[in-house]
Order: sequence, then C-alpha cells, then structure tokens
Amino acid sequence: MQITEEKGLVQKGLCAVEGVETNGIHTGFKAQDKDLALIYFPDGATVTGVFTRNKVKAHSVLYDMKMLKNFTDFKAILVNSGNANACNGLNGEEDVQSMTSALAKKLNIESHEVLVSSTGVIGEPMNLKPFYTGLDSLIGGLGTDTSTSAAEAIMTTDTVPKELSLEAEIGGHTVHFGAMIKGAGMIHPNMGTMLGYIVTDAGLPQADLNAALKSAADDSFNVMTVDGDTSTNDTVLLASTNKLMLDESHAAEFTSVLTALCQKLAQMIARDAEGATKFVTVNVINAYSKSDAVSVAKTVATSSLVKTAVYGQDANWGRVIMAIGNSDANYLNPATITIKFTSGNDEVLVCHEGLAVPFDEARAHEILSAQDIGIFIDLNAGESSAQVWTCDMSLDYVKINADYRS
Amino acid sequence: MQITEEKGLVQKGLCAVEGVETNGIHTGFKAQDKDLALIYFPDGATVTGVFTRNKVKAHSVLYDMKMLKNFTDFKAILVNSGNANACNGLNGEEDVQSMTSALAKKLNIESHEVLVSSTGVIGEPMNLKPFYTGLDSLIGGLGTDTSTSAAEAIMTTDTVPKELSLEAEIGGHTVHFGAMIKGAGMIHPNMGTMLGYIVTDAGLPQADLNAALKSAADDSFNVMTVDGDTSTNDTVLLASTNKLMLDESHAAEFTSVLTALCQKLAQMIARDAEGATKFVTVNVINAYSKSDAVSVAKTVATSSLVKTAVYGQDANWGRVIMAIGNSDANYLNPATITIKFTSGNDEVLVCHEGLAVPFDEARAHEILSAQDIGIFIDLNAGESSAQVWTCDMSLDYVKINADYRS
Repeated sequence: MQITEEKGLVQKGLCAVEGVETNGIHTGFKAQDKDLALIYFPDGATVTGVFTRNKVKAHSVLYDMKMLKNFTDFKAILVNSGNANACNGLNGEEDVQSMTSALAKKLNIESHEVLVSSTGVIGEPMNLKPFYTGLDSLIGGLGTDTSTSAAEAIMTTDTVPKELSLEAEIGGHTVHFGAMIKGAGMIHPNMGTMLGYIVTDAGLPQADLNAALKSAADDSFNVMTVDGDTSTNDTVLLASTNKLMLDESHAAEFTSVLTALCQKLAQMIARDAEGATKFVTVNVINAYSKSDAVSVAKTVATSSLVKTAVYGQDANWGRVIMAIGNSDANYLNPATITIKFTSGNDEVLVCHEGLAVPFDEARAHEILSAQDIGIFIDLNAGESSAQVWTCDMSLDYVKINADYRS
Repeated sequence: MQITEEKGLVQKGLCAVEGVETNGIHTGFKAQDKDLALIYFPDGATVTGVFTRNKVKAHSVLYDMKMLKNFTDFKAILVNSGNANACNGLNGEEDVQSMTSALAKKLNIESHEVLVSSTGVIGEPMNLKPFYTGLDSLIGGLGTDTSTSAAEAIMTTDTVPKELSLEAEIGGHTVHFGAMIKGAGMIHPNMGTMLGYIVTDAGLPQADLNAALKSAADDSFNVMTVDGDTSTNDTVLLASTNKLMLDESHAAEFTSVLTALCQKLAQMIARDAEGATKFVTVNVINAYSKSDAVSVAKTVATSSLVKTAVYGQDANWGRVIMAIGNSDANYLNPATITIKFTSGNDEVLVCHEGLAVPFDEARAHEILSAQDIGIFIDLNAGESSAQVWTCDMSLDYVKINADYRS
C-alpha cells in the first residue's frame, strides 16, 4: 500500500476528488462566523456513515441514519454549525425536512438525495429564516477550490479549519481522498465522536464502504478522547463518486488507506482540542487481552488527574498507575507494570515493575515540555497492545467550557 | 430514630466518644504542615473498614485489609499524610511493619493491635527517620480535646480539617459518634473514596459493624464524586469502644444513624473538593430501575462539560441531557425527560419532556449563582430514584492538579 500525501493536494481538501463541489458561508446560526457548509456531488455519490452512540441523538443524526438505511446514493450534504438541532421535538424533525427540501428545490434534485448534519448548542429551537435567505449565495458560490470555506463553516470551538487530502494506489488505480472534520469538545471514543466528511473517487458497493468506514473509525476516532463526553451529534460520512470502481478484492486495501486517513483526522482533532497545549499518545503494550489494553489506555487518557499533570509537565506517574488500577482490565498485576514518559526518541523510565525508579526530574520536565508527548505502559501480562490519542486538560479547557453559551 | 447534633459535641470530633484519645503533629512527610495522626483506644475498640476498589492498592490498605480479616479488636490507628506508600514494593510493606511495630512498642501494645493508613504522593519511597523522631511527641500529646490536630494531620489538598460528632438514641441508649475525614481529589464513587475514621461507643459484633458500614458507605461516599478518579488509598474505618453494647435487633437503627453521619461526611468532602466553588446535588427521579437512576446521576455528576457549565453558572441543560444519553441506563426515552436547576426552594424548568422550555436567563443565572445548587432530572420511566453529590470544575481544579507534586 502506497499513500502519497501531496502538498498541493492537501490544500484542496474535499475538492481533491473530482466531482465534488463545496462552499461555506455565514447565514445567521452564529453571530458572525461562517455557519453553513454544502458538499455537492453533481453526478451523485454512494454514501455511508457512522453516528454517535449517545442515547440522545440530534434530529439530523436520526434523519441521516434513516436515509442511509433506505438509500445508497446522494447528491448533497448540508451542514450547519451554531445550533445542534438536538432535543427540539417535532419542530426539530420538521426543520430537517424543511432544510433538505429547500436545498433540493434550489439544486433541482430530490429531497431524499440530501443528507444533513448540525453542530452547536443543544436544545435551542432553530431559526431557519437566515438559512432560506442564504441558500442562493450558498449554491451560487459552489466551486472546486472552496473546500476551506466549507471546513470553516462547520467549526464551533475549533480554532483552525481541519482538512486533508491524499492520493493512494489501490488495485492499480490512483485514487483520491478528500476530507474535512471538526470537533474540539464532547469528544470521547464511543463512535464517530465529531463531524467528519470524507470523499473519494474510489468506488465500492455501499456495504463495503460501510464495513471499511466502521473498521477505520474503530482504529481512529474511537481511540481518541478529549473530555470523556460523547456528543448527541457525532457523524462521519464517507462518500464515493465511483469514478474509479474497485474490485471487491481490494476492499481490505481500501480500508487500510481509509484507516490511515481517519487516523490523521482524529489526531487533528486531539491537537486542536479545547484548551489543549499538548498532544498525548497513550501506548499500552503486553496486555493480557486486546480489551484489557484498550481499557487501560482509555482510562489513562480520560483521567482528569493524568491530564492536568501532563498540562503541568509533571512526571506524576502515580496518577498513571492509579488510572491503570481504575480500568476495567481483567488481568492487572501492579508488580509487573512499567511506565515511561516519551517525546520523540527521548524517554524517561519512571516506574519499573510497579516500583519508583529514581529519575532526573529536569530531564523528565524537559521531555514533558514538548508539544507531542507519550505515556508508555508495559503491563507485562500478555501480548496485546492499544494506542489512544488525547490531549492535556488546561486552564483554557475550563475557561472555554464555563462560558460556551454566553 | 432521633439524632441530636450538639454544637458542643461537634467541636470534639473523634473525642466526643469516651475512650478515644487523639493527636496530630508535624514530623517530616510534608515540608511543614502536620502529617502524622494517631487515634488511640486505651481500652481497645472493635474495628471494621471499607477500602478502595482500585486494582492498585497502597501497602497500608493491603495491610489493614489483611489485619481486619484476622482480628476484630485494635488499640491504635496511625495515619500519615504526604506520602501514599503506594507502589513501593517490598520496601513499602516493610515500612508498614516498621511503623506499626515502632508505635506498638512505644504504646506498650501488640503490633497486631495497630492499623495504619497513608495519603499523599504515589510511588515515592517513605523516609521514616522523622517518623521515628516524632513518635514520642505524637504519643506524649495524646488527649481528649485534640481531635482537630488529628484531622489537620491527615489533610493533603483539603483546605479545612473535617470533623463531626453526634449523639443518637438507639435501643434506649444515648450513643455517641465522632468522625474525621479527608479528601479533595481522586474522589469517585467506587468505595470509601477517601480517608475517614468514625468512632462510636455503641457496640455491635464486628460482622454487624461491617454490614452497617458497607450499607452506609453505599448511600454516602459511593454516591459522591469529585473528579471520577478513584485513589489507591481510600479507606474508611469504623471503631466501636463497645461501652454501650447494643442488641443485634438494633443493627438497622444503628445503620440509619451511621448512614446519616456518613452522608454529612461525604458532603463535607464535596464542599471542600479541589477548586470547588459549588456543591451540586444531582437528583434523578422516576427512573425505570435503581441502577438506571444511579447510572444517570453519576454520569451527569462526572461529566466535565456539565461541571464546567455549573462553574460558569450557565443553565446549559443540553450538556445535562447529553450526559444522560451517555449513561449506561437501559431505559431512556429523550422525549420523557424533564430537567430543572434548583437552589433552595427556587427552581427553573429548562427542559420539559425532552424539549427546551423558554426560561428567564437572568433568573436561571441567579439560581446557579448560589453555592448549593441542584440538577433535577425526571426520567418519567418508572419509580426509582437516586441522588449523587458533586462539585463544579473550576480553573482552580486545573491549577491545583497541574502542580501537585512541585
């Protein structure tokens, strides 16, 4: 498998794939920033998705889930930020219908060819007036060099738009992927855990696309956590323009490329997480089972005390072993646990077989002062491993979330 | 059941019970604050305990668990703060032995009559020199009006010493309870979740005391959370001087009084939680089952996004319903959920049957600006209820935990 990430391509985001037009504008869901994005497939696309496992789901999520059960091909994906359209009852359902039909009418396509996502405040009724007013300008501005405006229009507390594209060789074809993603809070590995849109010209039947997306999400978005809270709106959609139909025997290769892409996207979220000053990789090796490895990695990555210590650049491994002990892992022997803090090729051993190791505090502090750090945990209990990405918990995390609505 | 909390008694803390002597001094586990406490029962006491469920347990916890399996009566409880004596291997075990034998020798009692707890940094070897030096002064200062010095000596990030005493009528006897407790972080309902010491003159067999303590802990310490992290050292010990032997038929009454006492102690911890500016009670009613009610209450009480919104005095009920949806509750229908924020007798309805209710933001902000606030959740799905106590998540929580070791 060969993946070429071309510098020129990266800047094209979603538009790196032919047959994809995008735009993003300000309408009125937010006070002044861009808040409405459109991805348009003039020739259609086969779409699949993964969605939040939160038992309270936004109206747009429920709508998309229903549509993807009944249809395989779509022509437009509409996304608004500034209002989550969650917990709005019948009005919320009607708003989804109104948005999709209004857009379909303007694009001269069928309503059932439109998918929709929303992100923002939960439980606030939608005001669609500015949306209707903005539709002509949204459609009028569609283009193939406008991916960034769409990526901007789906942001909430994100500080930068996040997009990516890559080329890969699959089954003799040079195929293309483009993606945009958003998410900085309410991020926890329990499904899609944010809004993400991936387009490709590589074609596979919807069922194969879905299997590939589920597998890729498990190894990327589902092993990334910001704050342990899972949103009501999480959605990742994968759309194929089918320009380069792959043989089903290449599904595994397609999944590998998609996984690599999703991992990059997941890391972009952890890097731009609310208030984050550091990108943290928790690596667990030699666990008794895969589920033990994942449980330990996620528990460490979610612990507020571990995350505040990382923010403070404090090699407080006691909190790491405390979190390990709080995991659901079935087989844990404190006397076999080894812990290191790492940064690039540097590492400092702080706990060997459950015991403190005298270490140079200045060196540990230097390692932890890097922007990308690792927490390495050897359980010495078996042969399974897991990796989870997260960020630190900073003063800004609290500041941002203490006045999000106001 | 009648409980009289006498003002005069409160100030006596542990010493409200006859046959209890206490002291607390500075030795050298901490730089300058008191760090060694002793509770002494010259005539002995029947003791039982509940301990952390963290799979990584401190050496003192493992020791006490073993001692309480083999013995029922003890004469001394020794507690040091500043070092958790966790993850110190054979040295840690030997240190527990050294501490208990040195104290036993000085007190002229048997080693197996001593229990010991530790709290502080994990994985740092103990230095017992200052402990040995301080023993004479610790024992020399034992008294019956010195409960506060012991309560001070077990503090870590606590800002105030926490003690309590009360009188109750049980089975025709006027019995007494005294208690001290500490804990401000690494607090999560998964057992004792802090250090607590309760003494009483009411006597019951150890098995009955243990059943009473387990039941009381379930309805108090185990429904309180600060940060979702469970310590390696959590311990609650209950000691009876047996001055007033109760008939076993009064065990239920004893449990009620003990539960009321433990609830007060648990609330003292949530009020003095790391960085907390508010005491928050999450009330869930009309859940389908008890486990659903507890799961919803704990998930809301643990959510960083709910806790930061409370800190910001922001009636952001969307985060509450998001957390409800993330719980493990088996039966949840978003369309039947009602949410109110409360303070004293004031309340503001923000979500009715899953839908936003227009509310006066100024009034909501006023209610949330109180120090004691409630989050009231009616699931309308059954007849079970649960209550969990927690605090908000403030800038100071991050500040305190970003530089705990330094």
